[in-house]
Amino acid sequence: SEKCNDGIHETLADLSSFQLEKVLHNNTNRKTVCLKGKFAAKNGDALVLLEKTAFAEENLTGDSDYFTKASSLEKVFHNDIYGNYNYFPKINLNTVKATIIHPATEEHFLKYSQQNCRIIDETPEIYEQVVLPQITSEQFDLNWVYNILEHKSESDRIVFEDSDPNTGFILLPDLKWNGEVDTLYLLAVVHKRGIKSLRDLTGSHLPLLKNIQKKGIEAIKSKYGLDGNQLRIYLHYQPSFYHLHVHFTYIKHEAPGILAERAHLLANVISNIELLPDYYQKVTLPFVVRENDKLYKKLKV
Amino acid sequence: SEKCNDGIHETLADLSSFQLEKVLHNNTNRKTVCLKGKFAAKNGDALVLLEKTAFAEENLTGDSDYFTKASSLEKVFHNDIYGNYNYFPKINLNTVKATIIHPATEEHFLKYSQQNCRIIDETPEIYEQVVLPQITSEQFDLNWVYNILEHKSESDRIVFEDSDPNTGFILLPDLKWNGEVDTLYLLAVVHKRGIKSLRDLTGSHLPLLKNIQKKGIEAIKSKYGLDGNQLRIYLHYQPSFYHLHVHFTYIKHEAPGILAERAHLLANVISNIELLPDYYQKVTLPFVVRENDKLYKKLKV
Repeated sequence: SEKCNDGIHETLADLSSFQLEKVLHNNTNRKTVCLKGKFAAKNGDALVLLEKTAFAEENLTGDSDYFTKASSLEKVFHNDIYGNYNYFPKINLNTVKATIIHPATEEHFLKYSQQNCRIIDETPEIYEQVVLPQITSEQFDLNWVYNILEHKSESDRIVFEDSDPNTGFILLPDLKWNGEVDTLYLLAVVHKRGIKSLRDLTGSHLPLLKNIQKKGIEAIKSKYGLDGNQLRIYLHYQPSFYHLHVHFTYIKHEAPGILAERAHLLANVISNIELLPDYYQKVTLPFVVRENDKLYKKLKV
Repeated sequence: SEKCNDGIHETLADLSSFQLEKVLHNNTNRKTVCLKGKFAAKNGDALVLLEKTAFAEENLTGDSDYFTKASSLEKVFHNDIYGNYNYFPKINLNTVKATIIHPATEEHFLKYSQQNCRIIDETPEIYEQVVLPQITSEQFDLNWVYNILEHKSESDRIVFEDSDPNTGFILLPDLKWNGEVDTLYLLAVVHKRGIKSLRDLTGSHLPLLKNIQKKGIEAIKSKYGLDGNQLRIYLHYQPSFYHLHVHFTYIKHEAPGILAERAHLLANVISNIELLPDYYQKVTLPFVVRENDKLYKKLKV
């Protein structure tokens, strides 16, 4: 597209033009790393997020190249029945997932840098007086979401669509997902605009929420074979973008963002609103904020 | 050594003689996989544990082969500034750690096997008709809890005690905690008996819950120096034992049992009961159960 003329995504074939400036984050548990740098002869900063991929079940069969001479072992030491090795799988079995953002903004770097966090018990008053004005002033760019909803981009990735303007949604793979069922991660993005987060949900949204629950489960069952009770279906608070969306992940996959301080299960959200239609306007919602986030500085005052 | 005469660790150079029988466990978060099988012409079962390695900081420099043509990129798609790629680092930069146990025993296999789980959306009816009778019939032994409350055991481990029979509790280190502040994990066990879980909590328990919140935070601040907003304070549903207790963990420690499908933040629990004193008798509470658990078999009927 025209917006991409100075972009790098049309031609990039390796990282030899990447000039590393800083390691922003190295998660040794998840095996991810986040790098800041520039691409030679291109304007703007770049963010490169690398993630070792999980082992794909379909490659874990007796005839895969994991179990041929194409993948070698190098012994580190052994002790009795226990042996420790470095293993070098054939290159196509050992992918790293790379997400490259260019040009990237300060907000992108902040989002991916490792930082100390605090839990804020957000009362309705704190939401109205501090959080909502901050969200409004930041004016997050939602064009990429509208591109999806208008079929201007990623339309070939759509897994399911219900086009009803009030209760409809588009279900598509999350950017973090590589497509293996083991790590299934889809997002339902609602067609209706202007619902920022959990805080905006009332009794009037029950048909929307129940429709996402029912049809999202059906679509995943039919395409990927998982039952509804094998899915973790949830919303984030705070979300990473303020256009209502629901996460679907495989229960056995420990996806990022599924901790109690951030993820709210859809079944419980629906039940809360059924008990009290203005539940989300009245309840205290804890959320996690980074210490050097603008929002945390405002909350401390 | 003599014990290794029939062993495999003297000569193994690849996995081509490994005969895969079963994938015991695939952790897509940590990128580990655990395999059961045999080695051709060798007696006994083998356990092969593979783990993708974390990115090594010493390789994250401008002159490493991560950033030369030796490591290639393959575009999956792009949308605006965001690009998604498969990345193939040079083979020696992309090691997998292999631990091989041979011959391995049944205990090794049990230790490394994963069980499949399901999410149950527990309505009040399901609780009354299926879950409560099951909890009651199992008659969990709570003597170890009463021993703590009566100072018959672990009294030297007590970090703080409020001995009030209605609002009091004992705060002590969780058994999983090694004592480092980085992984801080304490439990508050209430003195009052007969409160099984979240489901039993009503407006009458607000003084108890608020007392645990206030004095638990104060005790941890004074002994370990952490602020209240650096603590994840939560209850489990289902709990691992049916005597009310509250978990305190350091927010930056990803302790076991902090996922959205199991952990309920105390601040939110208090707010729910303030909004609706019988909230926990009316709400739908999702929880996770293993497929081969008795409870799951009863829930399926």
